[in-house]
Amino acid sequence: MRIVIVGGVGGGMSAAARARRLDESAEIIVLDRGEHVSFAGCGLPYHLGGEIEEADDLLVQTPESLRAALDLDVRTGHEVIGLDTAAQTLTVRSAAATETVGYDALVLSPGARAVRPPIPGLDSPRARTLRTVADATALRQRVDDGAGHAVVLGAGFIGLEAAEALARQGLAVTVVELADHVLPPLEREVAALVTAELERLGVTVRTGVAATAVEAGDTDDVVVLADGSRLPADLVVLSVGVRPDTEVFAAAGIETERGAIVVDAHGRTSADGVWAVGDATISTDAVTGARRPVALAGPANRAGRLVADDILRPGSARPVPATVGTAVVRVGELTAATTGANRAALRAGGIAFHTLHLHPSHHAGWFPGAEQIHLVIHFRADDGLLLGAQAVGRAGVDKRIDVLATAIRAGMEVGDLIDLDLAYAPPYGAAKDPVNLAGMAASNVLDGTLRIWHAEELDSLRAQALVLDVRSRAEFATGHVPGSVNVPHTELRGRLAEVRGAAAGRPVRALCGSGVRSHIAHRVLAQAGFDSASLSGGMLTLRAGLGPVADELLTTHDPALAG
Amino acid sequence: MRIVIVGGVGGGMSAAARARRLDESAEIIVLDRGEHVSFAGCGLPYHLGGEIEEADDLLVQTPESLRAALDLDVRTGHEVIGLDTAAQTLTVRSAAATETVGYDALVLSPGARAVRPPIPGLDSPRARTLRTVADATALRQRVDDGAGHAVVLGAGFIGLEAAEALARQGLAVTVVELADHVLPPLEREVAALVTAELERLGVTVRTGVAATAVEAGDTDDVVVLADGSRLPADLVVLSVGVRPDTEVFAAAGIETERGAIVVDAHGRTSADGVWAVGDATISTDAVTGARRPVALAGPANRAGRLVADDILRPGSARPVPATVGTAVVRVGELTAATTGANRAALRAGGIAFHTLHLHPSHHAGWFPGAEQIHLVIHFRADDGLLLGAQAVGRAGVDKRIDVLATAIRAGMEVGDLIDLDLAYAPPYGAAKDPVNLAGMAASNVLDGTLRIWHAEELDSLRAQALVLDVRSRAEFATGHVPGSVNVPHTELRGRLAEVRGAAAGRPVRALCGSGVRSHIAHRVLAQAGFDSASLSGGMLTLRAGLGPVADELLTTHDPALAG
Repeated sequence: MRIVIVGGVGGGMSAAARARRLDESAEIIVLDRGEHVSFAGCGLPYHLGGEIEEADDLLVQTPESLRAALDLDVRTGHEVIGLDTAAQTLTVRSAAATETVGYDALVLSPGARAVRPPIPGLDSPRARTLRTVADATALRQRVDDGAGHAVVLGAGFIGLEAAEALARQGLAVTVVELADHVLPPLEREVAALVTAELERLGVTVRTGVAATAVEAGDTDDVVVLADGSRLPADLVVLSVGVRPDTEVFAAAGIETERGAIVVDAHGRTSADGVWAVGDATISTDAVTGARRPVALAGPANRAGRLVADDILRPGSARPVPATVGTAVVRVGELTAATTGANRAALRAGGIAFHTLHLHPSHHAGWFPGAEQIHLVIHFRADDGLLLGAQAVGRAGVDKRIDVLATAIRAGMEVGDLIDLDLAYAPPYGAAKDPVNLAGMAASNVLDGTLRIWHAEELDSLRAQALVLDVRSRAEFATGHVPGSVNVPHTELRGRLAEVRGAAAGRPVRALCGSGVRSHIAHRVLAQAGFDSASLSGGMLTLRAGLGPVADELLTTHDPALAG
Repeated sequence: MRIVIVGGVGGGMSAAARARRLDESAEIIVLDRGEHVSFAGCGLPYHLGGEIEEADDLLVQTPESLRAALDLDVRTGHEVIGLDTAAQTLTVRSAAATETVGYDALVLSPGARAVRPPIPGLDSPRARTLRTVADATALRQRVDDGAGHAVVLGAGFIGLEAAEALARQGLAVTVVELADHVLPPLEREVAALVTAELERLGVTVRTGVAATAVEAGDTDDVVVLADGSRLPADLVVLSVGVRPDTEVFAAAGIETERGAIVVDAHGRTSADGVWAVGDATISTDAVTGARRPVALAGPANRAGRLVADDILRPGSARPVPATVGTAVVRVGELTAATTGANRAALRAGGIAFHTLHLHPSHHAGWFPGAEQIHLVIHFRADDGLLLGAQAVGRAGVDKRIDVLATAIRAGMEVGDLIDLDLAYAPPYGAAKDPVNLAGMAASNVLDGTLRIWHAEELDSLRAQALVLDVRSRAEFATGHVPGSVNVPHTELRGRLAEVRGAAAGRPVRALCGSGVRSHIAHRVLAQAGFDSASLSGGMLTLRAGLGPVADELLTTHDPALAG
């Protein structure tokens, strides 16, 4: 049996290695048009930033090592330019020749190519994507040659890694993002903390604005934005997204959907004997059921293995799972991560859901070094099914997102999170882990014990409700919602008549620092007959959600209810 | 309604706080015989070690703060000495008086007390347990007074934390453990790495030996061991386990089992109107179904909350879950953690299972700072249900154990671990996370693709099989099994005839460094018709499992098969 694999990175190489372990007798050929196979693409920004010194360190395997360990026939510099699914042959072009290669089973892992928006001047030699070792080497050369200013177009995961890498090398970096916040898959209130960290690193963040032109100059380029800004750039990194690299295969009649190869649950394409994996294929979202290509290394690698199973053990192979879509990025001292669906995806999917914000410590608060985790979870309104989670913080973020990703895969509802026995000792967590706390608070929301309001409702609520700030006087004095009334939660039970007077029949909307004390206050108020609710995530979420507007809105002045 | 809670730490305080949030009108009385409530017992060793400077930092709440925030009536220095379940009254003794306190609902959270083995001289004033703030303060005083030698009796989680704390303060510390390895709930091959770390910290480890006497002297004590060793001790920390502190309640007719209060799925005891939580109660093991008290802060705290739900919302409360038994400890630069069942528990439960060892990097190997995670998983032989996992390493251990704990709670089988979408970026993990890799390898074992052998079979196998070492020549030269034959895995396909000759009809048992290359070798051999198997975890597990014997057994001499 001859198995031919197109694309020697990620899913393709996983398929090849697994195929060999299952079948010593198969002939396994890996074709890649690039210079390298099995290189660590996710490491490119870190090579640019100097954290990975040598480009060679990114070359996990070579054709020679793969031949020795796994008897793979790896051919780099071989580009597939034609496919005949009836004849089961590929047309392959290399420097030496154009040849026909037959297959019994074909695995397509062509990946994705960088989207190049129609911006005049983007073909400047100073503008590059960051997709290959050669890209990273070239960009690093420009840095070594004394580049002073960089512009990164696109504030996605790789864009931010590149921006930080360049800032670490001493460049003045501006990130330009069309969406209204960095890391568009993240919620605004989570992304706001990442923006603050970028600024702390010296990176200038420009969101909600498009680049309209790159003007080439003698010594540098100028990136022109839609608002007229002109950003000098000794180098431009283009990182505005990717699209499946599937033209050759679509032309051969392989079914595609918006450019992505359509595959079934075992990675089979529309053509007999042809499988596909990775960024070039359509995935089904595990939460919303939406169909889209997912450019993530993990799912691609694992799918490659499962496809090899289906080729060599048809009938008993485990299916390729729907994608939960977990992702993480390090930005400075922060970690930002997401799993499952975000608000936009849930709204697009027509799913009714609640959102909850928490800011627990990553380990016991009384143990030195405790850091806040800023956590958001989304769960289904009718039954509490966990739908998505995001978090940002200096420690413990990836752990909680991985636990929540596992919970989503398992189909857990928020109540199930209460019961998770997570590892606790003071340096690692708390007797009630942040994930447990999220489950408890969400269960309270689900059964009506906790009623919440959200930062984005503030404007409308200020006109119709009493905003009751239950923080301490000292905290209130540092900045509060104009017109809000301060009754510390420890005094609330004794001052209900006062609150009733101030509310004058209006609803009461409580808030505190993070949502813990206003939860207690809400319970006091609700049981005393008030129409009350607690601000999800408290002032921390309010400030993050409002962004720079918060500083304009919040006041330190008005005395409100007498202290 | 009057709710009385006995024991103001952990589960008891969680029940009190939850009860108040659910019911503003209830009278909630918390009785504790100690000086403090709501203190961070898990932090005591860290106070002893100076990491937490002030004892006051361990006092999370005070009676005053609990009155202010939650309107709780907290009475310290109040010991319950009698219970009449028919009259629904407690007899309570305090410095001021002995009084009768009635209840509508009673929550028993008395906790556990330290086991004091019948060793003569253990009543020495230099010997203390580490259960209260007063214990930690007194021990620290002895350190400050110039103690030079310490003996810790018991190498459980708290014993090791205490040993490290004392070693950090400059004392010469010996840990004495009756079991044959430290951290007895951990597998021997995992615990061996912890022992090595303790020794690196300067702690002397004595396992498999009992203390038989403490001889009091004028300036210090001497701890005498069963083998005649005499250990000088300026202080002795007693940490050999705990037992439920339930005499008063058992005497009142509350049903107990081996001293632990029997509770149903909602924490209800045998008496109407009486609930119990925490270390004093019987738990059911989620994996084996075994019934035993579990002294863990997390389950106790969460059960307290659920018991309050059952008191105030009978009929709709979520049940207290069976215990997965996740635990973690920091020892020097290592983290050691466990979840689910260990070998001993599975054998005792009559459950047929496989064990698998892996040593993956905690994040991408090519990213700076990668550390090995030494991971063990147990899974059910017939269907792959995940039963337990343990890990030790310098980074990323608690995350993987938490993910696996979540998987156990969800009832996942090892194949499901393949599909987990865990957060990957180079600083955090790998495209195939250690948990994914564990699922892949375990699935291979389950379906026969991978056949494994274990380090403990080595003695019997050496007589009956060819031990084939597929590491490189250089690795082989650093130490190998006497009589084993070295054929690097990259040469194996070309040297099968040679191996066939050396095997002479015997089975072939392959090994490598960590089990990855011997897996490839096994596949080559099995498909060539050999009776072959791959050593689970490779030389890393072999060395850890054999312990000091490894250095005696392994040789650097015999040339074996010609290189």
